[in-house]
Amino acid sequence: MSDPLTAYKESVQKQLDTNELLVAKLVHENAVSTQQLEGKTQQLELAQEELDKLKETRTALQKDLDSHQDEVEVLRDLFEHLCGVRVHKSYEDDTGLWFDCSQGARSGIMDYKLGFVKGEAQETEVVYVPLLKQRSSEELAILQQQLPAYLFDTLSFPLKSLNQFYNKVAKCLNKKTK
Amino acid sequence: MSDPLTAYKESVQKQLDTNELLVAKLVHENAVSTQQLEGKTQQLELAQEELDKLKETRTALQKDLDSHQDEVEVLRDLFEHLCGVRVHKSYEDDTGLWFDCSQGARSGIMDYKLGFVKGEAQETEVVYVPLLKQRSSEELAILQQQLPAYLFDTLSFPLKSLNQFYNKVAKCLNKKTK
Repeated sequence: MSDPLTAYKESVQKQLDTNELLVAKLVHENAVSTQQLEGKTQQLELAQEELDKLKETRTALQKDLDSHQDEVEVLRDLFEHLCGVRVHKSYEDDTGLWFDCSQGARSGIMDYKLGFVKGEAQETEVVYVPLLKQRSSEELAILQQQLPAYLFDTLSFPLKSLNQFYNKVAKCLNKKTK
Repeated sequence: MSDPLTAYKESVQKQLDTNELLVAKLVHENAVSTQQLEGKTQQLELAQEELDKLKETRTALQKDLDSHQDEVEVLRDLFEHLCGVRVHKSYEDDTGLWFDCSQGARSGIMDYKLGFVKGEAQETEVVYVPLLKQRSSEELAILQQQLPAYLFDTLSFPLKSLNQFYNKVAKCLNKKTK
């Protein structure tokens, strides 16, 4: 058995050693936390940079989109003023590409759908579908005086005849009626 | 003067107190770090959410843009097949809205610029500028047989006469030449 002083000294030394270990552990934990904090800060900076870039991209895309929407409207207006054709809608489905149009002006307006579909031998065929629902019986009577009977039925013809079709409709719609 | 044992005990106590303070300081630092780390982690999560949303927006905008670019192309093609007018370019400047077009087909092609400008009384005036640089002297000779002389000069007319102008050019370009 040791004397009380030695025992006391040993106990004190043990406590000091324990404390030293605790301090070392805490210092280590602090170092780890600081490192993690630096890592997160760096990640956050990168995320912020990416955000800024994406926001710029979004603004540029939105601007492009606006100008393309304008261009679609502007082309439709030119079409109408130059050629007397209003394209109301264009859309694509499994059968092909479709346009809802109105042709004509003061003396008569014909609404129709034009479809561009793949025909035999991969040639593009145009499908013409008259749309008469919007016309009053009075307007219809006038159109029947102006246009040949076959234009009140669905037609199909090769793409190269489309301009000829347009000229025919334009010429008929300009006819004066009684 | 105290005896050596008391002096030793005091010195030990002092060291223990210092250690305790150091531990308290380190524990506090650790708590602060942990809190900061939680804050950064939360910020990072929010930034990540914002990034994901922006990426979705970008994809949707890009898709919209593609479909509008397609629509512009598709309208230009329809214009060409239906009415024999190719719109090469449309652009806006201080004077108004401008289109570079080609009209005609097999028997003759006339290139021109159409401008929509604000005239007097805020009515839209159309400015027609023939563009003849692309035509060979042979093609030019044919065009001169087909078209009246005034169509080789810059013209200006009210918007409501644009369809009449188009019909005139179309009719002339369909003329057979010797």
